[in-house]
Amino acid sequence: MNKKGILIVVSGFSGSGKGTLMKELLARYPDTYALSISATTRSPRAGEADGREYFFVSKDEFEKMIAKDELIEYAKYVENYYGTPRDYVESKLDEGKDVILEIEIQGALNVKKMFPDTLLLFVTPPSADELKKRLVGRGTETMEVIESRMDRACEEAAGMEYYDYLIVNDSLESCVAQMHDIIRAEHRRSSRNLEFMREIKEDLERMRSRR
Amino acid sequence: MNKKGILIVVSGFSGSGKGTLMKELLARYPDTYALSISATTRSPRAGEADGREYFFVSKDEFEKMIAKDELIEYAKYVENYYGTPRDYVESKLDEGKDVILEIEIQGALNVKKMFPDTLLLFVTPPSADELKKRLVGRGTETMEVIESRMDRACEEAAGMEYYDYLIVNDSLESCVAQMHDIIRAEHRRSSRNLEFMREIKEDLERMRSRR
Repeated sequence: MNKKGILIVVSGFSGSGKGTLMKELLARYPDTYALSISATTRSPRAGEADGREYFFVSKDEFEKMIAKDELIEYAKYVENYYGTPRDYVESKLDEGKDVILEIEIQGALNVKKMFPDTLLLFVTPPSADELKKRLVGRGTETMEVIESRMDRACEEAAGMEYYDYLIVNDSLESCVAQMHDIIRAEHRRSSRNLEFMREIKEDLERMRSRR
Repeated sequence: MNKKGILIVVSGFSGSGKGTLMKELLARYPDTYALSISATTRSPRAGEADGREYFFVSKDEFEKMIAKDELIEYAKYVENYYGTPRDYVESKLDEGKDVILEIEIQGALNVKKMFPDTLLLFVTPPSADELKKRLVGRGTETMEVIESRMDRACEEAAGMEYYDYLIVNDSLESCVAQMHDIIRAEHRRSSRNLEFMREIKEDLERMRSRR
């Protein structure tokens, strides 16, 4: 069966718990998955380390990466570039690992266009009410921040249907299991096993002609 | 998430162990799955019971079922009709059960045409050699029978790529798990959760306009 890794994009509502989900999935299956780290021109926030949350690069360096085709996708948000370095992704896929990109919808659709076999997963709370609770629930944000998050959530929701699967984040445990199950199942798709089917057919024809 | 049942077609090489797989899956998850029983005009074989392996009906009765649109698909093999009664399938789907049809490729493609959401699964041994072992391995068949089975296997192989997923029958245990995982994952497809996505979007818009 399919031995090559699958390229997986995970997006989802801000506050849907994607980050925690990714961390847990990788901790549990370190030999199965690899998490791609994005390059960005924005400044590191407190607690962020270069090469862990992001590769922090200058605008100049980023534009050189674009020019040399070293990114499989990139996008600009609020004057900052974000992109996915190609090398890491391709080498991990060749090793047979499923490579996960945690990126926004625009990047997701760009990746899908270039790599049509990409699996698009969208993480969502079980309901809009639950989503709202999470957006306001931290208790430290101003009304303005909450409203801007709500606006963003509406935009994010608009893209949901472009994703292949929805992962409902009711609990971390179930969320990790759903994601792992979906990816395992995807490895069994006929369209990802053309080589296996070709071999079975050729072997059968060979046996038939031999008799 | 998606509560309605999924219509599932299982096909596969003769000798791939479909029958045993279905029995085990249903024994293990009786509340999740329902197995559709085909109607046929062929005579019962030793050990077959009406309403268990098949509904055995006369040619006349079968043609009446066709005329009244009581079958969701039917086909004729070697002078005998085989078909899937509609009532059972639709009532079980409405109950939220995943309904499994064990039918041949021609029927599978007909069902898919009428119900595009049908999930097509193909059961295959891990290799053509293994398949051949199973075809000849019973030790009781003449060379002629074996050759006709090999011919049939070649025909069956030709249709594999129309199926959504391959289930590799290396062991019964793994086979049941693969099939159950694939179906569970399919329930999370965005295309099977249009209602859920619509509700989230509407709720978000409503919250936004309320403030």
